Amino acid sequence: MSDWKKRLADRGVDVDAVKTQLKRFTIETPSWGYAQTGTRFGKFLHPAAAKTFEHKVQDAAEVHKLTGITPGMAVHVLWDFPTGFEPAVVKQCAKHGLRIGAINPNVFQDQAYKFGSFASPDAAARKQAVAHCIDSVAIGRQAGSNLLSLWFADGTNFPGQDDLARRKRAMAAGLRQVHDALPESMTMLVEYKPFEPAFYTTDIQDWGMAVLLARQAGPRAKVLVDTGHHLPGCNIEQIVAILLDEGMLGGFHFNDRKYADDDLTAGSIAPYQLFLIFDQIAAARAAGNPNADAVAYMIDQSHNLKPKVEAMVQTVCTIQSLYAKALLVDRKTLAKAQAAGDIVLAEETLRAAFFTEVGELLGEVRSEMGAAPDPLVELRRSKYIDRRAAERRADQADAGGSYA
Amino acid sequence: MSDWKKRLADRGVDVDAVKTQLKRFTIETPSWGYAQTGTRFGKFLHPAAAKTFEHKVQDAAEVHKLTGITPGMAVHVLWDFPTGFEPAVVKQCAKHGLRIGAINPNVFQDQAYKFGSFASPDAAARKQAVAHCIDSVAIGRQAGSNLLSLWFADGTNFPGQDDLARRKRAMAAGLRQVHDALPESMTMLVEYKPFEPAFYTTDIQDWGMAVLLARQAGPRAKVLVDTGHHLPGCNIEQIVAILLDEGMLGGFHFNDRKYADDDLTAGSIAPYQLFLIFDQIAAARAAGNPNADAVAYMIDQSHNLKPKVEAMVQTVCTIQSLYAKALLVDRKTLAKAQAAGDIVLAEETLRAAFFTEVGELLGEVRSEMGAAPDPLVELRRSKYIDRRAAERRADQADAGGSYA
Amino acid sequence: MSDWKKRLADRGVDVDAVKTQLKRFTIETPSWGYAQTGTRFGKFLHPAAAKTFEHKVQDAAEVHKLTGITPGMAVHVLWDFPTGFEPAVVKQCAKHGLRIGAINPNVFQDQAYKFGSFASPDAAARKQAVAHCIDSVAIGRQAGSNLLSLWFADGTNFPGQDDLARRKRAMAAGLRQVHDALPESMTMLVEYKPFEPAFYTTDIQDWGMAVLLARQAGPRAKVLVDTGHHLPGCNIEQIVAILLDEGMLGGFHFNDRKYADDDLTAGSIAPYQLFLIFDQIAAARAAGNPNADAVAYMIDQSHNLKPKVEAMVQTVCTIQSLYAKALLVDRKTLAKAQAAGDIVLAEETLRAAFFTEVGELLGEVRSEMGAAPDPLVELRRSKYIDRRAAERRADQADAGGSYA
Amino acid sequence: MSDWKKRLADRGVDVDAVKTQLKRFTIETPSWGYAQTGTRFGKFLHPAAAKTFEHKVQDAAEVHKLTGITPGMAVHVLWDFPTGFEPAVVKQCAKHGLRIGAINPNVFQDQAYKFGSFASPDAAARKQAVAHCIDSVAIGRQAGSNLLSLWFADGTNFPGQDDLARRKRAMAAGLRQVHDALPESMTMLVEYKPFEPAFYTTDIQDWGMAVLLARQAGPRAKVLVDTGHHLPGCNIEQIVAILLDEGMLGGFHFNDRKYADDDLTAGSIAPYQLFLIFDQIAAARAAGNPNADAVAYMIDQSHNLKPKVEAMVQTVCTIQSLYAKALLVDRKTLAKAQAAGDIVLAEETLRAAFFTEVGELLGEVRSEMGAAPDPLVELRRSKYIDRRAAERRADQADAGGSYA
Repeated sequence: MSDWKKRLADRGVDVDAVKTQLKRFTIETPSWGYAQTGTRFGKFLHPAAAKTFEHKVQDAAEVHKLTGITPGMAVHVLWDFPTGFEPAVVKQCAKHGLRIGAINPNVFQDQAYKFGSFASPDAAARKQAVAHCIDSVAIGRQAGSNLLSLWFADGTNFPGQDDLARRKRAMAAGLRQVHDALPESMTMLVEYKPFEPAFYTTDIQDWGMAVLLARQAGPRAKVLVDTGHHLPGCNIEQIVAILLDEGMLGGFHFNDRKYADDDLTAGSIAPYQLFLIFDQIAAARAAGNPNADAVAYMIDQSHNLKPKVEAMVQTVCTIQSLYAKALLVDRKTLAKAQAAGDIVLAEETLRAAFFTEVGELLGEVRSEMGAAPDPLVELRRSKYIDRRAAERRADQADAGGSYA
Repeated sequence: MSDWKKRLADRGVDVDAVKTQLKRFTIETPSWGYAQTGTRFGKFLHPAAAKTFEHKVQDAAEVHKLTGITPGMAVHVLWDFPTGFEPAVVKQCAKHGLRIGAINPNVFQDQAYKFGSFASPDAAARKQAVAHCIDSVAIGRQAGSNLLSLWFADGTNFPGQDDLARRKRAMAAGLRQVHDALPESMTMLVEYKPFEPAFYTTDIQDWGMAVLLARQAGPRAKVLVDTGHHLPGCNIEQIVAILLDEGMLGGFHFNDRKYADDDLTAGSIAPYQLFLIFDQIAAARAAGNPNADAVAYMIDQSHNLKPKVEAMVQTVCTIQSLYAKALLVDRKTLAKAQAAGDIVLAEETLRAAFFTEVGELLGEVRSEMGAAPDPLVELRRSKYIDRRAAERRADQADAGGSYA
Repeated sequence: MSDWKKRLADRGVDVDAVKTQLKRFTIETPSWGYAQTGTRFGKFLHPAAAKTFEHKVQDAAEVHKLTGITPGMAVHVLWDFPTGFEPAVVKQCAKHGLRIGAINPNVFQDQAYKFGSFASPDAAARKQAVAHCIDSVAIGRQAGSNLLSLWFADGTNFPGQDDLARRKRAMAAGLRQVHDALPESMTMLVEYKPFEPAFYTTDIQDWGMAVLLARQAGPRAKVLVDTGHHLPGCNIEQIVAILLDEGMLGGFHFNDRKYADDDLTAGSIAPYQLFLIFDQIAAARAAGNPNADAVAYMIDQSHNLKPKVEAMVQTVCTIQSLYAKALLVDRKTLAKAQAAGDIVLAEETLRAAFFTEVGELLGEVRSEMGAAPDPLVELRRSKYIDRRAAERRADQADAGGSYA
Repeated sequence: MSDWKKRLADRGVDVDAVKTQLKRFTIETPSWGYAQTGTRFGKFLHPAAAKTFEHKVQDAAEVHKLTGITPGMAVHVLWDFPTGFEPAVVKQCAKHGLRIGAINPNVFQDQAYKFGSFASPDAAARKQAVAHCIDSVAIGRQAGSNLLSLWFADGTNFPGQDDLARRKRAMAAGLRQVHDALPESMTMLVEYKPFEPAFYTTDIQDWGMAVLLARQAGPRAKVLVDTGHHLPGCNIEQIVAILLDEGMLGGFHFNDRKYADDDLTAGSIAPYQLFLIFDQIAAARAAGNPNADAVAYMIDQSHNLKPKVEAMVQTVCTIQSLYAKALLVDRKTLAKAQAAGDIVLAEETLRAAFFTEVGELLGEVRSEMGAAPDPLVELRRSKYIDRRAAERRADQADAGGSYA
């Protein structure tokens, strides 16, 4: 037995079981994560950033080749299916060994949405937004996706701007209409966010509102947790535990933050917190909660300064390694310590797992899956980014402008 | 017509209707708000602070005499009914023209509650806590109270300390048991708080959790909003609008804050926010929502440095004046502006009401109710505090120690 | 004497003295505040938004005509002097009765500034940034401005990204170089901001850093307080008091916020806080602190949804009215209450001023200054915005894209 | 070479150099950290908590015996030297192999300090506070301590309560007086805190104010960073970098937090952040900054629920292990990556160190220092806590009451 395996086994880890779990764990990367992005103050252009859908597929496929765990690519209807369903898009994905992941409608960018989409005081805006989402359901169905991922920028900027109760009821009504259009196979994810771009109220501002609206919409509506969408101090892992217990956890958008919705790469600021989130999922699975195996893992962050593909590979590996650490938690010892009120032992049990080195474990898992043992190193060695930068440089000329 | 009345009428205010609403508006003061209190760093003793239940009743009666709108006094079972229901307590209140308001059990101070009460891993602690709350229901029934007000310090301080899903289910189970014990006449208020004294997770951490648990408990469970119990930036008036629309707003604990649960006197830091909260209630009432008239208004703050009775009178007057301003909002103009997306006009409509002087209006209302036109001035003129300080000074010798 | 004047006089206000102060109070509006703006999620276009410098001057002049207190317009070198000093720009302002206000260099948008400007690890970027600021000093001198207003987006996004001590020393060195280039007549304002667009560290993150760097730069460097650039809970009025006492308060960028740097119109979320800021300035002036009369007042906010000129007029009036209220504070009573530890009286003294109606007072002051008694009403009556929208509509076709 | 040593060496670590640094690293534990403590809602009593000074010394000595790196114990003058300097106290420490660490005056608990100490509007309170601090200097001198650690609860609770400029000048004057009384050998540490127990303004609210006041006090005044005393989002490691570069970092009070000043055990919530703080110190040392070796490390946290001695041992080991990880950072690779703008490599260089297992390294260091290889395990094995609980149980009867 290799050294690292022996070390883990000595600590009571069932290495084979952990490896099995790791091989089942997949993360979707977002098509827009490969394109130029920025802040409201401007964009710093990357020569290798994806400009076309083809570029995005190339990049997503490269990330999957290296990591072995990103077979799906989330798409944005406005940017990736601008003229409705297009079989070529699915074929292009398939050609690169990818499938279409979550379908993301866009109901925030059109000028019609100045005062909101589903919750707008303007009936035409509401109608346009709901129709776009129902169209997105159709695209998803044709593209073989089973996830409709809904994020709303809806809200108000100033006290008095709108009737909050009316907005709430309009949002609920719109979600019900979209839910009614869902095929059996699809789940509708309702995302929440405390603020930005709305700065006074946001119509779906927290998990409580998302649950309330999802339940009013119907049984195939679940909650999407974006790890960057919380007020300062909010305990995200507790929300995850609650949603799991209620059978309402639909999925994650991973990213990290220090201040607001900073959209930094996942695990870059608070890696322990991300581990604790995975610990709740592992705990729910260990307790037999079926919701733990019905969670969609997706990345949604903004690679402002880091090179796109490199940032994505780094993120996928970071998430995977924190997930792996959560699988190493000694649940028997933990349960005993919890029952006994032995706080120090319970905490040390978690920390022992968090601080366990998992590089060799992940290297073996990746090798067995046909991926690169160390994806970041392999990416740099392969000069993939330089090659793409050379190819795509011409296309960058007119980059800049709208977000993503 | 007096000048001020003319000015208001010229702005479209129906002064008589506003006065009628103001005369219906009452606020409960808490018995513990008259006693010595402090921070974890110590207490600064007030010579006039209430030491006995008799003192508390004297003070609450004085506040009611001056303001005319505080006929009820909330009680803490542990401190005010230490040995179970006591008819003398009710009689004492009645003698001073007061009634017993919300009944507050105490499930946080006993050593048994080290790891929680309803959510403790210890079955004996859970049982003791639930039994105490059921006893409190009985006390409330006998005391003629229609409100059981539940606040839980339950939570954990460190990652891993306890099984969060188990705690959630235990909390739900306890609340159901207490709800089952409620008479038809009583409402059970479920309070939430993001942190303190628990510093990692709090079992009822936000309005979403409170709604979820209240609904699982039964139809007579509603949510209590303590204005100081929110994470930074949280939009409280939106929560109020949501709860009202769901028929789930049970009541308020008023106080103010700049940082955490600072428990400052209501309206001292963010008076506009408190006005906006009342604006939501007034808007719901105008829209015919019956929940708007079923809300209990209570004060719960910590008079660390301000003299107790003076701080209470100041708070009652501040709340009443912000409520009055919300009644002055020109709802027709507001609704038109909202429908038209005229943000500036909508906002200015609110601000016009907020900045309207209401001193003379309130003076007339108070006079007609037999109270002091300017309660703070009258309190100082009367030397009530000095007199009580002289009477009670002897009792203060051993003050200090446990909270409240 | 008119009613309102009598009411104020009865409360001890020296109305003439207050009017004199109000007539001395001016606020700069920013040229970029009249142009299209948005969030990173997109822009909602206003038909009347300024597209050219001429438009900006027209709008700023209209605001000054209506309010009488905005004779200066702050300019952004990159957008308003793209090719260096241009006498036509100054003439255009003069033709409309305006003067050039604070000069704002732009060292955040060029691709060279990916890793910062003055603090970049790249010597060429540092040199370019310092040279641009020195050029801006020259432009300011020629344009007759006495303020160089410096905001830096400099910072890092991830732990380890750069050597923080090196960045600090580079920032200090750059500021010294610019200070050395200042004529006697100019003040250099150093702005701070906790985050955005940098999301891990910001090189000038708070007032403490701004003071430290300003003092290292030289005697003509002062601190600029942007009211939206603070962490949650931060007490801005205390910072103002400290800076005033140290003689380091250079000026303000006014706007309001609920969450992050939301850039809402000033006084829209926390009007009491803005009043308390002005109260510190009024208190310092009353105490004879000369710094109180050397403060530059500027607006810097983002009119995302509100019509540009309307939002600006609303903001100017809001700021002026909160300033007026601060002038009404009864400083003698306040000082006595403070000395006596009479918290309630001290607080009520402030609140009495805050809640005093000042509409008639301001109407008279404006009339005497030749401005509109109610500028917002007059703006709407005049249909200025509709006219400009019609004129400028053609120019909007290609709007959108870069920020501001 | 043992396996772990080879693994570290393979990664480029100079194991011997790291061990040398680790042996020089010491942390002070606070005498009050062994006593009963709680929140404002009450205390949960620990049978083994220290009641007398003798108990505190026993416990501190046990922690030092187990960990080998806590030879000093910080003392609180009010609680540990209630009647002035007492040679027996020093002897007692020496008998247990300890020395007196930082001297902490107490200027917040006496009734005289209701409105503050150094900044009180009451001259008698100011005088009493300054005199107590000068007395504390004398005690420190006699006790052989070289640190005077100053924390002020001074502040205000309500707008208008006091004249902020006067308070600032009074605080500065008091600090100068105390600095004047310092012997050459002593350093005066000025601690800052944003809020609590003051909830509107705190007189020394952040590092900027602490630096400003320390510099006005004199050359032996430095800043104390309590890791829990920051507003949400504040980047502490950047403050550390700034203070180090200015030669103003005096020391730390370690603890952790999620919300406010939660006083949880260090590293329990955000271990990566504590690592990043140590990384700044290690970086400064590597850059030849002498301030990096003049920093005092102290623990100041509240063991509400965790057993006292156990929590202290756990904390000491956690801090030591995060410090060890910071020593493992490959500074050459980091510097190269930073200069090249290679954010991903720079970040991964930090993370590689953070996630390196250091248990065996620390075990060897501890063994060589005569301490327990795994102090927590040894503490439990030894049944020290049970023994002390049995001995001290009688003393606990009247525990409870004042804080700490």
